[in-house]
Amino acid sequence: MEKREQLYEGKAKKVYATDDPNLVIVDYKDDATAGNGAKKGTIRGKGVVNNKVTNSLMRMLEKEGVPTHFVEELSDRETLVKKVSIVPLEVIVRNVAAGSFTARLGVKEGTRFDQPTLEYSFKDDDLGDPLINHYHALALKAATVEEMKTIDTYAFQVNEVLKNYLRQYNIDLIDFKLEFGRLSDGTIVLADEISPDTCRFWDATTGAHLDKDLFRRDLGGEVEAYQEVMKRLLGE
Amino acid sequence: MEKREQLYEGKAKKVYATDDPNLVIVDYKDDATAGNGAKKGTIRGKGVVNNKVTNSLMRMLEKEGVPTHFVEELSDRETLVKKVSIVPLEVIVRNVAAGSFTARLGVKEGTRFDQPTLEYSFKDDDLGDPLINHYHALALKAATVEEMKTIDTYAFQVNEVLKNYLRQYNIDLIDFKLEFGRLSDGTIVLADEISPDTCRFWDATTGAHLDKDLFRRDLGGEVEAYQEVMKRLLGE
Ligand SMILES: Nc1ncnc2c1ncn2[C@@H]1O[C@H](COP(=O)(O)OP(=O)(O)OP(=O)(O)O)[C@@H](O)[C@H]1O
Ligand SMILES: Nc1ncnc2c1ncn2[C@@H]1O[C@H](COP(=O)(O)OP(=O)(O)OP(=O)(O)O)[C@@H](O)[C@H]1O
Ligand SMILES: [Mg+2]
Ligand SMILES: [Mg+2]
Repeated sequence: MEKREQLYEGKAKKVYATDDPNLVIVDYKDDATAGNGAKKGTIRGKGVVNNKVTNSLMRMLEKEGVPTHFVEELSDRETLVKKVSIVPLEVIVRNVAAGSFTARLGVKEGTRFDQPTLEYSFKDDDLGDPLINHYHALALKAATVEEMKTIDTYAFQVNEVLKNYLRQYNIDLIDFKLEFGRLSDGTIVLADEISPDTCRFWDATTGAHLDKDLFRRDLGGEVEAYQEVMKRLLGE
Repeated sequence: MEKREQLYEGKAKKVYATDDPNLVIVDYKDDATAGNGAKKGTIRGKGVVNNKVTNSLMRMLEKEGVPTHFVEELSDRETLVKKVSIVPLEVIVRNVAAGSFTARLGVKEGTRFDQPTLEYSFKDDDLGDPLINHYHALALKAATVEEMKTIDTYAFQVNEVLKNYLRQYNIDLIDFKLEFGRLSDGTIVLADEISPDTCRFWDATTGAHLDKDLFRRDLGGEVEAYQEVMKRLLGE
């Protein structure tokens, strides 16, 4: 499958057309941003980690019954995926309070919820991806009621499967962000990535961050932490 | 029913104990605030308007099957109500985009939704009453799933009844905030107030504001607008 023209350059990935209108190639960069682009930097080797970790997790999720955009890993940084029209929602599932949630709602970081929470942010960089609820998503015509039901079911399923899967690698899944897309026939599939950029992974023993919070909070050690996640999940 | 000790002084009302532990007296002030208390002032006669308008609307809603805290109007500014433990949620229903919603979500003020939206703010002044969704409300233990079902049903019912009721007075119901409370046996009832402080009322012909936005936005004429609402609804 040949790379054709670049369709989009995002903060962490580039997307290329292919000869097949239903397929695109994503190319993972080492560029890192935080605070909706306010902080910019690089995490050496991140693109390789995120590509391989995403693909490994998507393969695993497919087997567990969650449809994804994944088709084939082409190289260390490049993957062939089904082209989707992205549903303009960031779907966030939380098992433990962390990040923006804690300050906003006065909950201490590390507080484990009795049940996972799910929330939507409206994907709009100019608005700063504001938190919305399901009624807002409908009013904004971001998704239909049926699509939201499907998305919520998949999101909670991803959480259960992923939480249990990561436990064997001594990783505690704190929270994560998913994006879903519509195939040309309208089918909803999991798209984008599942990586230390988009999940909070804590070492289950020490509580150490194994994710982008090391970069966001200037804690250091992010290059090693990303490698560590890849090593645990893929043995490399 | 005698007024006993003051239990609470809020920004717009005082609450007094009575000899009956299940009843309290609310006393409406002319004090007005906006922006979570950042702006302070007075709207002359507001307390009388909000007391009488609230009671008239609560009586009407009771007849339509929505249980409320209302017991008896005691004076121009004072009303006897059932004492509740307030559910710490501001329940907001919107028919038309206005206020904070428009800037946050990039929707033009005045945009009418195909269907009303409902949202919760977590009632916590220190946090600035942040927007939350139903999963957050559960995680924060603000209400149970059953209570939220009851609250949502009542909130949409209040919207339908109130929207139609106000139409005959040439008032367009744009949005409003409700508070609900638990009686000692756990029954959920509508509490607090329904007034130009807590609703956006637009003149159905001219679109003129008949509510606290006149004060919030320094547009002037708020004293007259509050009187106008009372005159339309109560003929006084
Ligand atoms: N299967 C897919 N088909 C088409 N687009 C996709 C697919 N999977 C992910 N995307 C989109 O490709 C882009 C990936 O780039 P990147 O993650 O760097 O974007 P970003 O900077 O996070 O910006 P944003 O997500 O706000 O567009 C995203 O816009 C993402 O939504
Ligand atoms: N039936 C009721 N029983 C007990 N408390 C009530 C009842 N109805 C309303 N309240 C509460 O009484 C107070 C009324 O005061 P006011 O509306 O001025 O408060 P406020 O300044 O808006 O502050 P806040 O609502 O954040 O407490 C509110 O706290 C309201 O929740
Ligand atoms: Mg992205
Ligand atoms: Mg109040």
